[in-house]
Amino acid sequence: MKYGKQTELALQNFGRGRVPEKLIRAYGEVKKAAILAIQKTERFFPPEVYESLLAAIEELISGKWNEECVIPLQQGGAGTSFHMNINEIIASRATEILHQTYNIQRNLHPLEDVNRYQSTNDTFPTAVTIVLFRDLLRIEEMVIALQATLVQKEKTYSLIPIMGRTELQDALPMTLGQVFGGWAGMIERDRWRLHKLKDRVRVVALGGTAVGTGFPAPQEYVFAVEQYLRDVTGLPLARSQNLPDAIAHHDDWSELASGYLLLARNLEKLCNDLLLYTSSFLQEMTHPEIQYGSTIMAAKTNPVLLEWVKGMCMRAAALCRLVEDYHAAGNLQLNAFVPFIAEAMLEIADLLQRSLEGMIRFLEIVVVNTDTMARHIDHSRAMLNLFLPVVGYEKTKAIAQKMPSFSNLEDLKRWLAENGFPEDLQNLCDISSLTRFIRKIPKEKKP
Amino acid sequence: MKYGKQTELALQNFGRGRVPEKLIRAYGEVKKAAILAIQKTERFFPPEVYESLLAAIEELISGKWNEECVIPLQQGGAGTSFHMNINEIIASRATEILHQTYNIQRNLHPLEDVNRYQSTNDTFPTAVTIVLFRDLLRIEEMVIALQATLVQKEKTYSLIPIMGRTELQDALPMTLGQVFGGWAGMIERDRWRLHKLKDRVRVVALGGTAVGTGFPAPQEYVFAVEQYLRDVTGLPLARSQNLPDAIAHHDDWSELASGYLLLARNLEKLCNDLLLYTSSFLQEMTHPEIQYGSTIMAAKTNPVLLEWVKGMCMRAAALCRLVEDYHAAGNLQLNAFVPFIAEAMLEIADLLQRSLEGMIRFLEIVVVNTDTMARHIDHSRAMLNLFLPVVGYEKTKAIAQKMPSFSNLEDLKRWLAENGFPEDLQNLCDISSLTRFIRKIPKEKKP
Amino acid sequence: MKYGKQTELALQNFGRGRVPEKLIRAYGEVKKAAILAIQKTERFFPPEVYESLLAAIEELISGKWNEECVIPLQQGGAGTSFHMNINEIIASRATEILHQTYNIQRNLHPLEDVNRYQSTNDTFPTAVTIVLFRDLLRIEEMVIALQATLVQKEKTYSLIPIMGRTELQDALPMTLGQVFGGWAGMIERDRWRLHKLKDRVRVVALGGTAVGTGFPAPQEYVFAVEQYLRDVTGLPLARSQNLPDAIAHHDDWSELASGYLLLARNLEKLCNDLLLYTSSFLQEMTHPEIQYGSTIMAAKTNPVLLEWVKGMCMRAAALCRLVEDYHAAGNLQLNAFVPFIAEAMLEIADLLQRSLEGMIRFLEIVVVNTDTMARHIDHSRAMLNLFLPVVGYEKTKAIAQKMPSFSNLEDLKRWLAENGFPEDLQNLCDISSLTRFIRKIPKEKKP
Amino acid sequence: MKYGKQTELALQNFGRGRVPEKLIRAYGEVKKAAILAIQKTERFFPPEVYESLLAAIEELISGKWNEECVIPLQQGGAGTSFHMNINEIIASRATEILHQTYNIQRNLHPLEDVNRYQSTNDTFPTAVTIVLFRDLLRIEEMVIALQATLVQKEKTYSLIPIMGRTELQDALPMTLGQVFGGWAGMIERDRWRLHKLKDRVRVVALGGTAVGTGFPAPQEYVFAVEQYLRDVTGLPLARSQNLPDAIAHHDDWSELASGYLLLARNLEKLCNDLLLYTSSFLQEMTHPEIQYGSTIMAAKTNPVLLEWVKGMCMRAAALCRLVEDYHAAGNLQLNAFVPFIAEAMLEIADLLQRSLEGMIRFLEIVVVNTDTMARHIDHSRAMLNLFLPVVGYEKTKAIAQKMPSFSNLEDLKRWLAENGFPEDLQNLCDISSLTRFIRKIPKEKKP
Repeated sequence: MKYGKQTELALQNFGRGRVPEKLIRAYGEVKKAAILAIQKTERFFPPEVYESLLAAIEELISGKWNEECVIPLQQGGAGTSFHMNINEIIASRATEILHQTYNIQRNLHPLEDVNRYQSTNDTFPTAVTIVLFRDLLRIEEMVIALQATLVQKEKTYSLIPIMGRTELQDALPMTLGQVFGGWAGMIERDRWRLHKLKDRVRVVALGGTAVGTGFPAPQEYVFAVEQYLRDVTGLPLARSQNLPDAIAHHDDWSELASGYLLLARNLEKLCNDLLLYTSSFLQEMTHPEIQYGSTIMAAKTNPVLLEWVKGMCMRAAALCRLVEDYHAAGNLQLNAFVPFIAEAMLEIADLLQRSLEGMIRFLEIVVVNTDTMARHIDHSRAMLNLFLPVVGYEKTKAIAQKMPSFSNLEDLKRWLAENGFPEDLQNLCDISSLTRFIRKIPKEKKP
Repeated sequence: MKYGKQTELALQNFGRGRVPEKLIRAYGEVKKAAILAIQKTERFFPPEVYESLLAAIEELISGKWNEECVIPLQQGGAGTSFHMNINEIIASRATEILHQTYNIQRNLHPLEDVNRYQSTNDTFPTAVTIVLFRDLLRIEEMVIALQATLVQKEKTYSLIPIMGRTELQDALPMTLGQVFGGWAGMIERDRWRLHKLKDRVRVVALGGTAVGTGFPAPQEYVFAVEQYLRDVTGLPLARSQNLPDAIAHHDDWSELASGYLLLARNLEKLCNDLLLYTSSFLQEMTHPEIQYGSTIMAAKTNPVLLEWVKGMCMRAAALCRLVEDYHAAGNLQLNAFVPFIAEAMLEIADLLQRSLEGMIRFLEIVVVNTDTMARHIDHSRAMLNLFLPVVGYEKTKAIAQKMPSFSNLEDLKRWLAENGFPEDLQNLCDISSLTRFIRKIPKEKKP
Repeated sequence: MKYGKQTELALQNFGRGRVPEKLIRAYGEVKKAAILAIQKTERFFPPEVYESLLAAIEELISGKWNEECVIPLQQGGAGTSFHMNINEIIASRATEILHQTYNIQRNLHPLEDVNRYQSTNDTFPTAVTIVLFRDLLRIEEMVIALQATLVQKEKTYSLIPIMGRTELQDALPMTLGQVFGGWAGMIERDRWRLHKLKDRVRVVALGGTAVGTGFPAPQEYVFAVEQYLRDVTGLPLARSQNLPDAIAHHDDWSELASGYLLLARNLEKLCNDLLLYTSSFLQEMTHPEIQYGSTIMAAKTNPVLLEWVKGMCMRAAALCRLVEDYHAAGNLQLNAFVPFIAEAMLEIADLLQRSLEGMIRFLEIVVVNTDTMARHIDHSRAMLNLFLPVVGYEKTKAIAQKMPSFSNLEDLKRWLAENGFPEDLQNLCDISSLTRFIRKIPKEKKP
Repeated sequence: MKYGKQTELALQNFGRGRVPEKLIRAYGEVKKAAILAIQKTERFFPPEVYESLLAAIEELISGKWNEECVIPLQQGGAGTSFHMNINEIIASRATEILHQTYNIQRNLHPLEDVNRYQSTNDTFPTAVTIVLFRDLLRIEEMVIALQATLVQKEKTYSLIPIMGRTELQDALPMTLGQVFGGWAGMIERDRWRLHKLKDRVRVVALGGTAVGTGFPAPQEYVFAVEQYLRDVTGLPLARSQNLPDAIAHHDDWSELASGYLLLARNLEKLCNDLLLYTSSFLQEMTHPEIQYGSTIMAAKTNPVLLEWVKGMCMRAAALCRLVEDYHAAGNLQLNAFVPFIAEAMLEIADLLQRSLEGMIRFLEIVVVNTDTMARHIDHSRAMLNLFLPVVGYEKTKAIAQKMPSFSNLEDLKRWLAENGFPEDLQNLCDISSLTRFIRKIPKEKKP
């Protein structure tokens, strides 16, 4: 057991739990940057102590002591308990190394030795930011992949007609390429938003200590630790120019949550559309049977991937809103709910990653039934809407009302001919020439 | 490995995860009730098969095969995958028993043998209901304990004066007993709500199979399985009189979530009040130091229990709202998000249990500083509000405006005497006689 | 202009607005009960003053001074400004009557004369409760009407077959009566919930004054005012037995909001189902054209009533959650957001009333296309699910996989015959005998 | 009465209501751009008809027919009814002008004449965008003003010491300037976000007609109308390069709502802090009495502006979330809830405008009590935290535990001297030299 007395007290207070591994690693990286900065600017530690501390921190980063991080993120005290847990692991393991490797019988103190110039309030949010940034890179990459998939299908189906529907009613024909292109446009905005959010979540409070005044850290340390943090993590992190703000407020994380929420809701909309297209009612697409659909209905296939993605996105959206709630619950110089925010944000990223994987997989295996799309157009009264430019609104309406129950376009043509309507109306009832009405408006030339 | 082909497919679709043990147990109990009912009404299974199936199910209930339940609750298909996982475990384990104990070389089929007359759509929600009911009993018990704690303190402090505050401003004196009594009143309503909710979550859809028509289950089975379910679980469960409704709609669970949400928000309000009373500003109560408050501020104690409870309650509330979202996302004859609802509801119950434990523990150890309360009254301008019945609103206001900066009640008395105000005004400035103004209005005699 | 100086100040602070008329009336009723109780227990006012005050209050109740209530409910101060507005109107109008009718030249004071023993904190929430109770009665009545409409249709269509669908996929046939009955069951729970909520929102804090201690109201007044409040309003209101609680906490209103939220979400689910049934894809029901569907598509009809109801229900749900947020934002002895809660609650009730009206109207005019329902059954592969009890799960699955593309049940019959399947399988493919499989499970005999 | 038959039908369906004036104006501007483009590219209308239509539209823009816009935004049909209302007003008024001014007896048709090439689905969202953009400019301006106010106070109070508090507990001293600067930093991010959002909400779907295919509008019209729209509105609007996307999806508005939500929650946090600073407990700031605080407590002042702002921000946040819900409720080629979104967005902007006005006014009149701030520092045990760099964590803790109950810094000094602690510890207990520990970390030099 590497952790010590304060961790044991915290266990009594909050119970035992697990901390996500990537957050332990990130806290280790913050600790490494701190010790490098302290040693560089102060030569504070004797070489053996320094080497032992560094070695212990490296082990922590490598994941060796994950099992020793036992305080759940659901904790009071703004993360002090998780931080103490980290400090105690480093202190006890470094002491061990000091004894074993250097034969020096000194006991390192988790606060006085390990935690010099560091407050939970600046180091923990920094560790969280590291994870948020890495997660964001990962999510961004998958959003790009989803967009690419949709754009590719936009091209593949650029000439396939499908009935466009508004308010769940047939409206006007369009191409399936336009449908995929519409979705791609939505996801493209997500991509852009996430890209821009990288600038927002790279700012850290490291060096501000407890309330942003930096007490008692010397200025040299504050400058050095920022540089080391970039080196250690390989991320373009920057110290906030307003440390009291950076420690008190997490609307930047809340903004990231907003970006994730928009992605989640866009994916939810995409799921809803695809659930309709693959439904028994429409069958314009087919969700392949990738597992039994039912334990009692042998002939049933279910849209399991779409439901899975939708369910996860709804959960992600709820957690994004929770992050906003936690943000607004901050008081005065600190937000005490950073550990709860971290828990929620990490879960959101995982939910979205799986959602994106699920959606991409679905799009790879979905079967598109172009014949069914054509049949639906052939059977749709909405084709009468094409008469507008020829006979005008009121006459079209009159035809629609006079016309007997609609079966298909051939019938319509016959009825129009029998009732003496002009030939160009009849010509409109021709799926093969539909693309005339489905124009892609060309790019505007920007002034 | 006990699970089979369908579970393997599901693993490819949804990844590997854990299912809460109590939900596995509950599903086992449903399976047991079903097989008892089938055998009773049909003598369907040869005795050895029946005994083997029963034994396998008993093992499942006992927790022996928890590790084999590998499909996360985050799954599409409305729970079919978890259900198949259960069916496959029972089938393969019962086959093993059949071989080993009875030396019968028959392979039991997870659907045709294990799943007779059972749909995911009626059995899974029934298993969820079992867990929801048990969790509700547990939460109710703890709410009763919290109420008792508050009522006991209401009595203890019935004569201790404290400044009553509205809008964070001193208003009128009251007793600390009334403050605790006010909180107790709020929690009493939670108790009542949860008590009433037991009637709501005892209704199950078992026997309705896929869409509530009961196809292909015989009526005798449907009647028998309900009775066995009560026997096996020891819970007062009842079959819905409207099975298509019971399968399609989960507003009853959403109602339970609403009840939990109210509890969560009441606890949040209680936390907020206690965070103020224990704050450095008020210090009318003290949160004992149960762990280091800070890694950098040695003289700091933090309200860790209150923050812990508040953070968990906020998360619980967000998940309660998510349950409502899932409920509203149901379509036609089924809600596909039952597994996601189950995941959220079980987490909510755990969060609330820990919240209640944390709050009760806090109330047991909190230190009440009655001297500070008295000093605050002594220093409060709000004591002038007591002048109202003697000199009226406008004169009181005039006194308040004319009076030099307020220090304490003795000063006020002196100033009143010097400025010729009547003696009964001066008498009002007497903490010892405050209780005259803090009346407990007696119980109304009901007509 | 009847209002006075404090109202003018409030206008500068919060701008000018309107107060819902029913809330002005209710506040008048509270004022009437108070003055009746004061006069009865104290003979405080000279007869002419008393009569003038009473007459002014009666005018306020009658709606004569609605235009004088100018402070929007969006106000700080927990309702004090609205209350002062009311007090000033009564004082100035009663003074006028005193002059004109009794020729007494006394100016009545809005606080010292009109507001004896009354705090905003007990009177305003009481006025709100009166409106909430009346709104609840109105909503309950309409929920009963909706339930009756659904139950009537359950009977009308008890023998009409329709395809039951789960996860938007054809599942098993059922009757349209069962579909309506399922919805009726959901709404029946709403009815029950709202009925029960009447007990919860009848409790008022009147007599508790500012913080629940009742200062400086005499006990006789406190008892009398409650009785008069019942007489004046005709409602079964009761004073809380725990006044500090009743003033500080509004989880009872939040509970009412929860009940409304469940209704809103049930209506949303009902809308979603009906939007599918009336969609171009399903057309099993038709939303009659009650207005032009489009300004550009002459042949289009839109489900305008369903979208209207759904949009309002979503807004109502958001406001219900807001009420919960306001509830949780209360501090210590008061919730400062009562005026905001009142605004939200009154809007919720209006939204739900219109939603219920819209839904009932839709159900009255909707056209049910039973032929389309039958055709969909005839064309559905899901009819194979009926083979389960005859040939078992795996054989049914095999048939489903071997069978060429499904066109209708006659084709299926032929194929079965040609491929030597037993006759009873063929008999299953017969819509006319479907009702055999659509059993209504009879009522359970309660032990 | 200017409106016609379709509006009357809509009145029967949705009741009578008001439309925000700025939305009527914006719709008029869209209509003007459309008619200008039609006439330019087609010379479709005879000059008198064209002039009459243009004149009628100008009147609509000027607000002359606001009373004739009678369909509430809460409407089904995705805005068709509001659009028809507009078309009917223009048609009947232009007909009137045609008769009266030109003596031409032709009746203009609300669809065939007024609505050429226009669908509700492209024109209504365009009108909404115009209003959103203008509201955004207005909000941005006020956020800049708020930031300026905070920055100015940051400078004013740059040397005033105040106790920094984390988790509502005294932590370390800082300057009041840093507190204001922290808030300014938060609002600066809002400013930046809103600035960036202007790029997002300038994209319109005009020209896409019903589903984004542009049918039946000629390309020349589509190009011309965009240019005229910029001219008429004076706004930098641009046509979407992906019209099916622009009509189906409103995550861009949802993104704007997210930006507003973050502002609302930041303001909420600021309110919460100020409510604490102005509370009876802290009194480090004073909310001036701008109206009576209570109708029964004459000596009470309430933080009415802060509560007002907080209440409005909470409502705004709830409506922002509602916008997200509406966005996610879109289906296939259209979001039917555009009118509901418009209603919510316009209310959000108004709530935020008033919130910002209220907050700026509060900051202008708030009284800062620097003496109280100094006294709180003098009385705070947290000053012991300053000992850390001198004696280390454990010794500081030991001093804190050994020290008798803390009264003020002079006492502490005396006790330290009596107990032989080093002089530099005693020197730490000196408010006048506090600023040594409150360092502003200088700007980082960017690499």
